[in-house]
Amino acid sequence: MSQTAYRTHHATDVTEDLVGQRVKLSGWVDRRRDHGGVAFIDLRDSSGVVQVVINDEEMARPLRSEFVVELEGTVRMRPEGNENPHMRTGKVEVEVESLDVLAKSDALPFQVSTVLANETEGKLPGEDVRLKYRYLDLRRPSMARNIKLRSDMMKAARTVLDEMGFTEVETPTMIKSTPEGARDFVVPARLVPGSWYALPQSPQLLKQLLMVAGVERYYQFARCYRDEDFRADRQPEFTQLDMEMAFVDQEDVMAMTERLIQAIWKAAGHDVQLPLPRITWQDAMDKYGSDKPDLRFGNPLVELTDYFKNTPFRVFQAPYVGAVLFKGGAATPRRQFDAWQDWAKQRGAKGLAYIVFGENGEIKGPVAKNISEEERNGLKAAVGAEDGDAVFFAAGAREASQMLLGAVRVELADRAGLLKPDDFAFTWVVDFPLFKKADDPDDDDVAVGHSKWTSMHHPFTMPSKDWLDTFDQDPEHAMSDSYDIVCNGNEMGGGSVRIHRDDIQDRVLEVLGIDEAEAQDKFGFLLEAFKYGAPPHAGIALGWDRTAAILSGSDSIRDVIAFPKAGGGRDPLTGAPAPISDEQRAETGVDYDPEDDE
Amino acid sequence: MSQTAYRTHHATDVTEDLVGQRVKLSGWVDRRRDHGGVAFIDLRDSSGVVQVVINDEEMARPLRSEFVVELEGTVRMRPEGNENPHMRTGKVEVEVESLDVLAKSDALPFQVSTVLANETEGKLPGEDVRLKYRYLDLRRPSMARNIKLRSDMMKAARTVLDEMGFTEVETPTMIKSTPEGARDFVVPARLVPGSWYALPQSPQLLKQLLMVAGVERYYQFARCYRDEDFRADRQPEFTQLDMEMAFVDQEDVMAMTERLIQAIWKAAGHDVQLPLPRITWQDAMDKYGSDKPDLRFGNPLVELTDYFKNTPFRVFQAPYVGAVLFKGGAATPRRQFDAWQDWAKQRGAKGLAYIVFGENGEIKGPVAKNISEEERNGLKAAVGAEDGDAVFFAAGAREASQMLLGAVRVELADRAGLLKPDDFAFTWVVDFPLFKKADDPDDDDVAVGHSKWTSMHHPFTMPSKDWLDTFDQDPEHAMSDSYDIVCNGNEMGGGSVRIHRDDIQDRVLEVLGIDEAEAQDKFGFLLEAFKYGAPPHAGIALGWDRTAAILSGSDSIRDVIAFPKAGGGRDPLTGAPAPISDEQRAETGVDYDPEDDE
Repeated sequence: MSQTAYRTHHATDVTEDLVGQRVKLSGWVDRRRDHGGVAFIDLRDSSGVVQVVINDEEMARPLRSEFVVELEGTVRMRPEGNENPHMRTGKVEVEVESLDVLAKSDALPFQVSTVLANETEGKLPGEDVRLKYRYLDLRRPSMARNIKLRSDMMKAARTVLDEMGFTEVETPTMIKSTPEGARDFVVPARLVPGSWYALPQSPQLLKQLLMVAGVERYYQFARCYRDEDFRADRQPEFTQLDMEMAFVDQEDVMAMTERLIQAIWKAAGHDVQLPLPRITWQDAMDKYGSDKPDLRFGNPLVELTDYFKNTPFRVFQAPYVGAVLFKGGAATPRRQFDAWQDWAKQRGAKGLAYIVFGENGEIKGPVAKNISEEERNGLKAAVGAEDGDAVFFAAGAREASQMLLGAVRVELADRAGLLKPDDFAFTWVVDFPLFKKADDPDDDDVAVGHSKWTSMHHPFTMPSKDWLDTFDQDPEHAMSDSYDIVCNGNEMGGGSVRIHRDDIQDRVLEVLGIDEAEAQDKFGFLLEAFKYGAPPHAGIALGWDRTAAILSGSDSIRDVIAFPKAGGGRDPLTGAPAPISDEQRAETGVDYDPEDDE
Repeated sequence: MSQTAYRTHHATDVTEDLVGQRVKLSGWVDRRRDHGGVAFIDLRDSSGVVQVVINDEEMARPLRSEFVVELEGTVRMRPEGNENPHMRTGKVEVEVESLDVLAKSDALPFQVSTVLANETEGKLPGEDVRLKYRYLDLRRPSMARNIKLRSDMMKAARTVLDEMGFTEVETPTMIKSTPEGARDFVVPARLVPGSWYALPQSPQLLKQLLMVAGVERYYQFARCYRDEDFRADRQPEFTQLDMEMAFVDQEDVMAMTERLIQAIWKAAGHDVQLPLPRITWQDAMDKYGSDKPDLRFGNPLVELTDYFKNTPFRVFQAPYVGAVLFKGGAATPRRQFDAWQDWAKQRGAKGLAYIVFGENGEIKGPVAKNISEEERNGLKAAVGAEDGDAVFFAAGAREASQMLLGAVRVELADRAGLLKPDDFAFTWVVDFPLFKKADDPDDDDVAVGHSKWTSMHHPFTMPSKDWLDTFDQDPEHAMSDSYDIVCNGNEMGGGSVRIHRDDIQDRVLEVLGIDEAEAQDKFGFLLEAFKYGAPPHAGIALGWDRTAAILSGSDSIRDVIAFPKAGGGRDPLTGAPAPISDEQRAETGVDYDPEDDE
């Protein structure tokens, strides 16, 4: 299907095989060089670039960067010595016989040339300019590659989901407000004045209804919406690859997901070995100070609570003391250690204690003097250090301290250049608690309950089998059948076995402090559905923007979204959001007053 | 991947090959019969049904319709004479050895049994009840088939689009209000109080930007939104298979679309012969009184304007007189012809003149006396009638009269049983006018202009080559490069070559009465994009709900949507739309007053 009214071939179809043939090509002027009255044009289309040669000065004169042209000419070998081995079409060129300018281009706000990409990539303007001219930004080879890769990933995912018997179902996006924690975007319902739709934060309840409906294996690339305050790398709308299966347990979903991930990575030429490793949530916290540990490198946290249990140092008389090794850190200048203190304070810590192991066994650093002789002696062995290393400490509440050390661990690896974007270290995180304290500020998945407990995942998560009878008597320790898939320190996705019995759902809601009236109002339809033969079911969702960013090696999800929003939800390209007219507002019904009807 | 924690096989895997083997199955109790202390259960899962036999009365006692069970047992041949040749699993049964009830079911509000489908399909409750219990309605075999078919169609479409080099791109759904005619759904932007996003009526402008971006071949199953007053078979959100191609002309898009349609129909086992027929818009109106003619049957309109040019009958002294033949209609009782008058009045006509050709050449009916002897004599030949036929007339404004006759033509065919849902008569409708009178009430695609002209398709449609220089001098007759694909009297989709040059776009906007300020405000970003090398491009979109309804033989698009809205945009299942809390409302910012900031 290369052949259209405007071309017989794409640019990269033009190779030695076509020498002597007449071709018609269309595309953009990527670069123009002139040499002895002859114009050499790199003609770019969606396939890549081919060199075309124009001997006719008049024909060549108007052509400038990003003009759109249609041309006909004959393919010939390049003169000896002029080949470009780095180009697929580098042995040939097209001698142009006729040429039409299909569209002109003004001078560009920034360079998009493929041929000059290496030179221009570093000279990009700020992101607002890139977004305002997104149609130019997407011409740049790295962005064009990302958009294509994202499409290829979707295709690979669909192919394997189809092999596994999944049905693609589109669920509605104008729904009732759901209780999943973040703020809903809402849409006034003109035909029912005073009423609103919500845009879905996820199709969670709808996909559970599909299981009750007997669909058994559902998937969808679902558009989801969260009206959150601006945070870097969050978008008000985002895509998740949403899946749900009936008559499965956790192992079935994990096996399916692994096959899926393998196929997606394969689409980018990467082999993923299965099965993927697993770590319990508790181990992940203890060893890596994170529920999404980056396993591209080692250097686990070392717990020293016991080691310091009789310490004279007040700071270390804490529920938790831990450390992370800074290999070779002894050579670090004092001012850099001071900068680490600021880094830690920005993360809400008081500071970051450290010790340096000198070349000849001596122990230095501000904290050194506070710990006992005995503690000093064994410390090197306890933290696995050698002379010339340093070690960072955290002491205090267990989880907060671990998370600080976990962040230090990643920061150290980043500075050491260990975070290679084309290394992919996957792990499952399993054995999550069912509940967590409701005042935990470090999560968006805050559920709506009014008790001291909130759901770790969401209120529809099944307690693990061992806890089915007792989870409501001991919410603090109850475990759930849920699982996250993590890659390179990013939570790519997560899921759980769902509750399919209304008696269990009722008990979970009670722990969450959601009374029956509220439950009925918010998701009574799901509880009702459970009365008519709901199969056991479980599911998972992959954050698709994040997954594409990881696989493409992009720093930001905005680089794998065709038209992302900038900070504050603004679109520099179209100017959205924008005021609406008074007439439009009147029609929405937001100013409807029931008393006006009387 | 049949094998999970809950099953070794799906129901329809259980055939003669497995006799003697132990299997584990899970599913719903579709039907239960008891015979001599033995319970025969039709066990249903997503694959279909298999008979399982329970000899243990205690085990069988609790089982009722739609209970969810997991069972193990041994496959055996059914006793001779008990085979069911209509079932894939009809030669075998499973002798149950152990059984767990995974979930119970209350008594159902309506029957969903697959096995009893033929008996129960006619006894469905009203649609509001079906929608309230949609998770049960979707268990019914016809609905389950529709959902599966829709998924299969998407897969088939994606496969062929991929072969043709298309890239799937997701475009944003929180955008700026676009000028495509229908009312936008709008979403308050909390972070920019007083501002709103709009949900897209289509990704039209965004896909054109993707062409400027060099994507060249884009597709997306795009969710679209229109806030229209309730009309049967319209949904506030709907899906279109949206496509756009660069460096193509109308023929390229049509050829691509035909290949696509062939692949989609093939997914349901139907062969479509290519190329598809074409008819001009003018011919479609003249011959079928419709811009979406149903070609499953013939019986074209007969124009009689010339025939009656000297008529003494005042009613036929009109700019247009036409007729449609009612084969064998002479036997129709008078009261039925009277009912046709009411039918016509409901469609806004004054009535429906008719004549009956008696068995012996006589001409009867209320109108007969009004026409001259000469006119009577030639009339039978002129309309292609024989004795025993009748003929309906319409006279008046050309288009309105033709559309009335077109509706009569379809109604006659429907009553004659000629509208078979598994006959598929496709046609392209081509050669549309570029503009139409702005007061034409019969269209949603009313553009935003303020002149007497509005776009027939939309303001981005390219004038046809012959009219490029003169379309603004003679808007009434100017033609466009646009095309609709029609099947069985339904507009499945439509598209056009787009304007890619800002000079042409400016002239079109001028005809539409859109001044520069308004154009800049509404789609200045597209006009700006055209300054940087926009390739020629064209596209099409298929209404996916309609396409699925046609292919599945469904009367309503609601039967091919998992969770559709009822009238007025209500969802009887979840209760959406619904009021929101004062707190939620305050957060949306809709009550923001800029003066409060001062």
